[in-house]
Amino acid sequence: MKQIGIIGSEGRMGRTIAALLDGSAGHAGGVDAGGDVAGLAAGSDVLVDFSAPGALEATLAAARTAQTPLVVGTTGLADSHHALIDATAKDIAILQAANTSLGVNLLAHLVRDAAARLGTEWDIEIVEMHHRHKVDAPSGTALLLGEAAAAGRKTTLGEVAEEGRAGLDCARTEGAIGFASLRGGSVAGDHQVVLAAEGERIELGHRAESREIFARGAIKAALWLADKEPGRYTMGDVLGL
Amino acid sequence: MKQIGIIGSEGRMGRTIAALLDGSAGHAGGVDAGGDVAGLAAGSDVLVDFSAPGALEATLAAARTAQTPLVVGTTGLADSHHALIDATAKDIAILQAANTSLGVNLLAHLVRDAAARLGTEWDIEIVEMHHRHKVDAPSGTALLLGEAAAAGRKTTLGEVAEEGRAGLDCARTEGAIGFASLRGGSVAGDHQVVLAAEGERIELGHRAESREIFARGAIKAALWLADKEPGRYTMGDVLGL
Amino acid sequence: MKQIGIIGSEGRMGRTIAALLDGSAGHAGGVDAGGDVAGLAAGSDVLVDFSAPGALEATLAAARTAQTPLVVGTTGLADSHHALIDATAKDIAILQAANTSLGVNLLAHLVRDAAARLGTEWDIEIVEMHHRHKVDAPSGTALLLGEAAAAGRKTTLGEVAEEGRAGLDCARTEGAIGFASLRGGSVAGDHQVVLAAEGERIELGHRAESREIFARGAIKAALWLADKEPGRYTMGDVLGL
Amino acid sequence: MKQIGIIGSEGRMGRTIAALLDGSAGHAGGVDAGGDVAGLAAGSDVLVDFSAPGALEATLAAARTAQTPLVVGTTGLADSHHALIDATAKDIAILQAANTSLGVNLLAHLVRDAAARLGTEWDIEIVEMHHRHKVDAPSGTALLLGEAAAAGRKTTLGEVAEEGRAGLDCARTEGAIGFASLRGGSVAGDHQVVLAAEGERIELGHRAESREIFARGAIKAALWLADKEPGRYTMGDVLGL
Repeated sequence: MKQIGIIGSEGRMGRTIAALLDGSAGHAGGVDAGGDVAGLAAGSDVLVDFSAPGALEATLAAARTAQTPLVVGTTGLADSHHALIDATAKDIAILQAANTSLGVNLLAHLVRDAAARLGTEWDIEIVEMHHRHKVDAPSGTALLLGEAAAAGRKTTLGEVAEEGRAGLDCARTEGAIGFASLRGGSVAGDHQVVLAAEGERIELGHRAESREIFARGAIKAALWLADKEPGRYTMGDVLGL
Repeated sequence: MKQIGIIGSEGRMGRTIAALLDGSAGHAGGVDAGGDVAGLAAGSDVLVDFSAPGALEATLAAARTAQTPLVVGTTGLADSHHALIDATAKDIAILQAANTSLGVNLLAHLVRDAAARLGTEWDIEIVEMHHRHKVDAPSGTALLLGEAAAAGRKTTLGEVAEEGRAGLDCARTEGAIGFASLRGGSVAGDHQVVLAAEGERIELGHRAESREIFARGAIKAALWLADKEPGRYTMGDVLGL
Repeated sequence: MKQIGIIGSEGRMGRTIAALLDGSAGHAGGVDAGGDVAGLAAGSDVLVDFSAPGALEATLAAARTAQTPLVVGTTGLADSHHALIDATAKDIAILQAANTSLGVNLLAHLVRDAAARLGTEWDIEIVEMHHRHKVDAPSGTALLLGEAAAAGRKTTLGEVAEEGRAGLDCARTEGAIGFASLRGGSVAGDHQVVLAAEGERIELGHRAESREIFARGAIKAALWLADKEPGRYTMGDVLGL
Repeated sequence: MKQIGIIGSEGRMGRTIAALLDGSAGHAGGVDAGGDVAGLAAGSDVLVDFSAPGALEATLAAARTAQTPLVVGTTGLADSHHALIDATAKDIAILQAANTSLGVNLLAHLVRDAAARLGTEWDIEIVEMHHRHKVDAPSGTALLLGEAAAAGRKTTLGEVAEEGRAGLDCARTEGAIGFASLRGGSVAGDHQVVLAAEGERIELGHRAESREIFARGAIKAALWLADKEPGRYTMGDVLGL
């Protein structure tokens, strides 16, 4: 059985994955901030990282040195983090996913299709809700859905994203993709993409009942990735979308 | 300009279409129950029918005699009505649509795709709300969406539909497509298809703010149909889906 | 510490309550269909029943004989069951609740208030979704909310309920309270009361993320009930609503 | 019949009100930016203002001079505008309302009640959607609902509002009331107040199908206000909430 090592093992997702693996032969162990990442990488067949953006550089270096494939589930990544992932993926297999559930990844596929078929007289807005402890907004999954919509329109989120709308002068730009974030309670993750035109709206959404679906998806992705060639992969590859 | 004749001109949809056509050269007139359908058919380039299932046979006969293409927007049609439409479509162009909006027809396309990609461990349920005066349930549009889901699963609604769930013994059948209908106020038409699995849900919905989007879509369909060859057409043909 | 006995300990709710009590001094044990209810009643300070309507008569008799207070969380109860509860509540304390969460019981309070302030030109519809294994529809919680709405209008659900709308002739009656039920996936319980008038809608809803909130509420109710005088109580009494 | 004068008669709401009054003896006329407000005030029994915050000072002065009661429906008002209204309300009757529909004002009443009964372990978030042309965010109605929630908790929105959440460091403050705004299509106005605790959520919302409900409410408020004593009034006074 493949041994899975968890980076960020004391975080919410890390603990959920550990609980699912607990007692199984497939659990190589975990480390949190300040722990021995290099040792964990050497002793695992594949790593799963749900820690923080600031720890990513060290994690990538340890995974490359140990030649251990890596699933990156950390959200809040900047362009510089993606560049680091791309560079490291020349040497090892890396799968980066803002969301590891089947449902969200299928939704992204539908959003891309809808955005490609509708003109910019259909305004796109994305709203998400997560638990009160989440500190980044919009969520990584909201950005994933926004990127799908932007790709459908043959543009990029960098060109069209509008975040944090507030004030007396926030006129909507034609073609913009707006984001709105709610935080509260223990919500595992709700997302909705609204496509609104004159007189009608299409609403495409996903609700996660618990973090377990993400943990199960991350384990599925890790097992799939463990023996892959170097390169950068997506959940779409795992799920055959 | 093409002359459009309205059958069911005193109904909610008929009046909305008439208001949009009013004063335009393209309005051939309208008839309601008991009116001169044959005369209207003879004097129009294309007919739009939003009356009642019971009137359909006479309308089809009049359209065939006059060789006038016909858009059928009436809902609550039985299999026998569809057979009549098929037979008449050998002689004239007929477009039958449970819903003439772009949004709903795109939604049906997405629902078919999602249903085709997800196994029956994803339960499909369809819920709709319409104004208090609507007497048929589920709505024609809900059935249209259900047919799309059934087609995605390579089955038919006749095989898998579950309507009007109520009582102490309504266990869900594996693979069923359930329908639920709300009625109240002046709601023009809200629909949502829920695909629910263990731990997560995908929700694909449409909201119509007013009947105008259906009226505009029906006029668009009529103008498109006016010079078509005999045959049976769909909104997908008009919208290029 | 009060000893809680669980009737229906192998059902979904019974197991969730047992898991929360597990290892605690407060867990008197549990029985399922065919088990020794009389023994459990004698050995518990308070009973919690989440079994099936058919078992209620025997449970009430055992609780009365042992003089043990009883929380009834079973749904799908008929009028005859309520009469049995009323009769037994002359001798022991009984709390019957279709839903033991704070949120749902507060929602019922708001629904009653809204219904009392709005005339019957506001149509009331209630829609709920539960997991695929639930066999009764509407849910007990939907009926609880409907009763609150009916009470606000100074009528009873028996007078105004419309369930299982389906067919070509389901015209809405003025003053009716309609119910619609969705089943699928693992949904713990979503409810929405829609009040719809000409041009506007008020939507009052509740979402349960997991059965744990009901289990925690049932334990809270049981501990509250354990030393109460004979009589019939509600969650409103426990929650101070 | 009372003569109603419309300030901001070329705006979306102004035109909707004018259309409803059109041809009626009750329409004193309207002015837009740069028009003769003093003349309109003198010739009207009551004024309705749906223009812009920048025009409010001149409108208040004209209404005071003419001793004509005034309904202020303009949104995006600052504290200084409210102070001006308070000062002018010593001399004439003024009703200021962020939303003139019955549904929204009842919803505010329910939100205040719910917030008063639930502790701050229930996080409050407010999300709204309006048409693509609306430039202020959050909407005046969202703020009205937020003020109701804050009042229920015996605090003020100034103390607890969190708007425009975006970025990597937006941790939620205990007791905060968050706002999120979507813009797109032709949405007349949707609002939802979410109260989220561990494991459950209460969702209290309102949907407006068209601006007509606000226009009708504004006319109702104007007719009610026309013969009132000087003072500051609310829609709650009109609706008897």
